[in-house]
Amino acid sequence: MEVLKLKRGLDLVLLTADFAGTLLFAMEGALAGIRGGMDLFGVLVLAFITAVGGGIVRDLLIGATPPASIKDWRYGAIAFTGGMMAFLFHGVIAQKASSGVITALDAAGLSLFAIAGATKAMEFGMHPMMAVLLGTITGCGGGTIRDILLNTVPGVLRADIYASAALLGAAVMVAFVRVLKLRPSLAALAGGISCFALRMISVWHGWSLPKVGA
Amino acid sequence: MEVLKLKRGLDLVLLTADFAGTLLFAMEGALAGIRGGMDLFGVLVLAFITAVGGGIVRDLLIGATPPASIKDWRYGAIAFTGGMMAFLFHGVIAQKASSGVITALDAAGLSLFAIAGATKAMEFGMHPMMAVLLGTITGCGGGTIRDILLNTVPGVLRADIYASAALLGAAVMVAFVRVLKLRPSLAALAGGISCFALRMISVWHGWSLPKVGA
Amino acid sequence: MEVLKLKRGLDLVLLTADFAGTLLFAMEGALAGIRGGMDLFGVLVLAFITAVGGGIVRDLLIGATPPASIKDWRYGAIAFTGGMMAFLFHGVIAQKASSGVITALDAAGLSLFAIAGATKAMEFGMHPMMAVLLGTITGCGGGTIRDILLNTVPGVLRADIYASAALLGAAVMVAFVRVLKLRPSLAALAGGISCFALRMISVWHGWSLPKVGA
Repeated sequence: MEVLKLKRGLDLVLLTADFAGTLLFAMEGALAGIRGGMDLFGVLVLAFITAVGGGIVRDLLIGATPPASIKDWRYGAIAFTGGMMAFLFHGVIAQKASSGVITALDAAGLSLFAIAGATKAMEFGMHPMMAVLLGTITGCGGGTIRDILLNTVPGVLRADIYASAALLGAAVMVAFVRVLKLRPSLAALAGGISCFALRMISVWHGWSLPKVGA
Repeated sequence: MEVLKLKRGLDLVLLTADFAGTLLFAMEGALAGIRGGMDLFGVLVLAFITAVGGGIVRDLLIGATPPASIKDWRYGAIAFTGGMMAFLFHGVIAQKASSGVITALDAAGLSLFAIAGATKAMEFGMHPMMAVLLGTITGCGGGTIRDILLNTVPGVLRADIYASAALLGAAVMVAFVRVLKLRPSLAALAGGISCFALRMISVWHGWSLPKVGA
Repeated sequence: MEVLKLKRGLDLVLLTADFAGTLLFAMEGALAGIRGGMDLFGVLVLAFITAVGGGIVRDLLIGATPPASIKDWRYGAIAFTGGMMAFLFHGVIAQKASSGVITALDAAGLSLFAIAGATKAMEFGMHPMMAVLLGTITGCGGGTIRDILLNTVPGVLRADIYASAALLGAAVMVAFVRVLKLRPSLAALAGGISCFALRMISVWHGWSLPKVGA
């Protein structure tokens, strides 16, 4: 009974975090659309795709159709709300967007998406290596599609420790579950902290991955 | 018996309209490819993807695989025929393409695709809000992928009342079926007319959606 | 017994060829990423998507989910190995990449992918015309997604006899199986040789498809 209550409480926390991450990513996508000269419809599309695009690609690839964010209308409602808020209050929001608080919130969202994505992939029987890849896609896929729609080279492919942080987080979680046989919740925590820490430290120090000839 | 005949007659009308819309969208996609300097293969790819891309994305998202236009070879045959016609007679067709007749035909095709897409999404148990979204994707998805392949920002994201017309049409139909409990055929008619009317009036008056800072 | 052994031997040859093609396409994708200024993560993504992207699109379209290269971790492992090799030894590899040997190996990989793709599509009950299309997508889809990520118009849409060679190979194979009722292995051989020959001859003579106004 108590355990069940705890489990339900945890589920509620996770769902709330998932919705919060969706809202944040949607607002970031919308701001990118506004900067790219999109009209209201385009801004809402970019909000939606940035927020749920990674999860949709993951679900299509693991055969979990219809994808969660198509089946459950609340993701769409939250994404469009975030997009509309960004459209109406872009001045205030854009100003905050460059602050450290948003960077930290975004890193938290990235960690959450990467861990949730890798977990779902494992639940669907994917190989650990593919689960890590699918976790990374969950974290970065939406931003990648957003950049394609904005007709730019996806940022995650050429700069910054962003996708790599998602990959590290997913890898830590998968390794802790599969190799060290840790409890999933502990492994998820360790993975999430790894992703968050790597992302924040690399922003702080201006780290980036090696390039050929650079 | 009479009813059955009527039903069959209606199905035939709808199928014919669907094929006609596919042909028209394919020719428009092919013309865009010719303007973009594509070779014959590229022109045929753009014809195909413009005509059936929206429906394919919808079918993947609602879990209706293989998508209708992959399962039924006639869509591909029609799309490639349209692409080949545009390639061979581009001079004549391109001239007509800027005329009001083509704008009206395109608006009719958009209405049809949006309504058909929303209907199929509802049949697959999607939430009304997502059915509206999926109807819009059916109408505009093909053109969006075409623009990505042409390496331009998708036109529907930044100009014109086009996607919005598809969205209105799908929303009217879904609302009439779910809220007003109208017969699907009547609701589809109302939705289609809404989409068509909004598109034509907005072309007439040069309407577009608001942008930030514009 | 002997037949079974032969069958197993053939399967092993095919699997080895498939893996070799995956490695080669991955290295080519990685080189394109290096030229496009990607960082290590981006190079590995381009290696993966170039190598297995076409097969993933095919599998999604025929309803074979999860796609083979997501279900079987070895494709990913090979693709990332190829990408890492290209990243580390790009100087040597890039030099070879313009040689005739690589062109021939690439044409062999294209033939293999096109034939394998069309075969799988037929096994999943697709119409012959769509099987040809799906074989072509298997051969060229990965390169197309790579070009989209590099923010360029996909090369196969506007230059060169590349996709057309894949299409010819798939068409020859499908026709030989369906019309001439040849054994699948013989038809595959005929299709593969057609694709390879057309590609090599067209490189040799600098052939390309017609364009409008060109």
